[in-house]
Amino acid sequence: MSAAKKIWLNDRLIAVDNAHISPLDRGFTLGDGLFETMRVRSGQVLRLESHLARLRRGAAVIGLSLSWTDTELEEAITQTLFANELQDAFVRLTVSRGVPSVRGLLPDSNASPTLVIQCGEFDGYPAALYERGMRVVTSSVRRSEFSPLANVKSLNYLDQILARQEAAAKGADDALMLNTAGNVACASAANIFFVKDDTLITPRLSDGALPGTMRAYVLDELAQQHGLVVIERSISLTEIDEMDEAFLTNALMGLMPLVSVNDRAINAGVAGKLTLALRHASE
Amino acid sequence: MSAAKKIWLNDRLIAVDNAHISPLDRGFTLGDGLFETMRVRSGQVLRLESHLARLRRGAAVIGLSLSWTDTELEEAITQTLFANELQDAFVRLTVSRGVPSVRGLLPDSNASPTLVIQCGEFDGYPAALYERGMRVVTSSVRRSEFSPLANVKSLNYLDQILARQEAAAKGADDALMLNTAGNVACASAANIFFVKDDTLITPRLSDGALPGTMRAYVLDELAQQHGLVVIERSISLTEIDEMDEAFLTNALMGLMPLVSVNDRAINAGVAGKLTLALRHASE
Repeated sequence: MSAAKKIWLNDRLIAVDNAHISPLDRGFTLGDGLFETMRVRSGQVLRLESHLARLRRGAAVIGLSLSWTDTELEEAITQTLFANELQDAFVRLTVSRGVPSVRGLLPDSNASPTLVIQCGEFDGYPAALYERGMRVVTSSVRRSEFSPLANVKSLNYLDQILARQEAAAKGADDALMLNTAGNVACASAANIFFVKDDTLITPRLSDGALPGTMRAYVLDELAQQHGLVVIERSISLTEIDEMDEAFLTNALMGLMPLVSVNDRAINAGVAGKLTLALRHASE
Repeated sequence: MSAAKKIWLNDRLIAVDNAHISPLDRGFTLGDGLFETMRVRSGQVLRLESHLARLRRGAAVIGLSLSWTDTELEEAITQTLFANELQDAFVRLTVSRGVPSVRGLLPDSNASPTLVIQCGEFDGYPAALYERGMRVVTSSVRRSEFSPLANVKSLNYLDQILARQEAAAKGADDALMLNTAGNVACASAANIFFVKDDTLITPRLSDGALPGTMRAYVLDELAQQHGLVVIERSISLTEIDEMDEAFLTNALMGLMPLVSVNDRAINAGVAGKLTLALRHASE
């Protein structure tokens, strides 16, 4: 998984091999929890505030009370990175509803949540992949825009795993997930953007897109720096043919050119000019 | 959780307090796994074959290779019940994709799955609840009939947890979940049946219903014993008003009368005659 030797568990650092959770933890038995995956560059966690804010919004949606302040979480993340002597890394924070004392679906309000912070070396995706751009295929697995979880980074990732497996079996780099209305939602673990006539277009959160931290950075900062109009709207699959450029975003890979969907090229199959400019500005 | 002292972990029994899994297990990090909850009566696991068959179908859907034969799983369940001296119990079998050696959504084919078998005392639901019948309210959380997981008992249970919390907040016994088309799918952890003119009507699996073991028992055995016609079809919410009787089923509660939906009574708010006859026959 990584060269990491220490992991944060609840209130302290512990050797990875000694880090254990109960098989009765609701994170394991019911996927009852949340997570954030963050990129660390030169020892700095990128957009940490944005990640912690999303974690808290998710906790509110599922009714999970976090017993840690942002400062405590930040301190735990810092200590975990320091203990593993990592400068360029990924760090993943997982919070679950913990071990209940009663059976059933209803959460036990007396249970303490479980906190896990793991990290590992991460030098980024291969430069060659950014140069050639990703190729995706549409998945038969739909993203349900009807679920409150569509906008929450929860531990329920099996739909996305299935989509990713399906894409890999077809030799694609990732899956394009449509929502139940047949509109574009996201990739298996990334947001999607299109460029048309110097306008950035991305699916709305109500189309089933996750409120990605990199998505927010593109919308709130990069677009403005480049004087781009931003439109969040539903995008049909057939519309993709009319787009000038496309790219994917997530916290770990940043901004990745997208050059084909179902073997139909976007921008003649090469990374777009504006895409590359935005990528350059985001690094 | 229960009076159980021993739990089965991978290949052996272990004291519950010493049973640990890695926080890197994909069951915990991504909800990447499956489970079965079974009822044990007088030392016998009810419909064990049906549960193991569903587990294998689910494993095929998510591409998880189970390294245990049915006989081995049965033996492990028997040993776990025996070690805990349980005769009337629930037993839950969980299988996850285990601890990967690589990061990311794609499963690591070299990882060994994790197997957990936990059990506990279970005397059934209160007799008074079967007498008065359950009252449900529709949930704002929809069940996506588009997901292959709708027909798989996976570890992704957060939608159902949200639905159950919502129902509890409204003082209801359970949530009625509609699919994205607005048709009836299931309760938060149970299948739903209606009776109309001596016909049993239940949502199709393609409406998002889980292929419940008790559902199959009602369709394949109970209905025939009672000479009832069975129809699997889409059921709209408004149609419920026209139904004569209703009940819920799952492996633990068996057959539970359903007497109201959103405060609208079914069969004048009392358990139906045919429902009680079927319940009697199923015990």
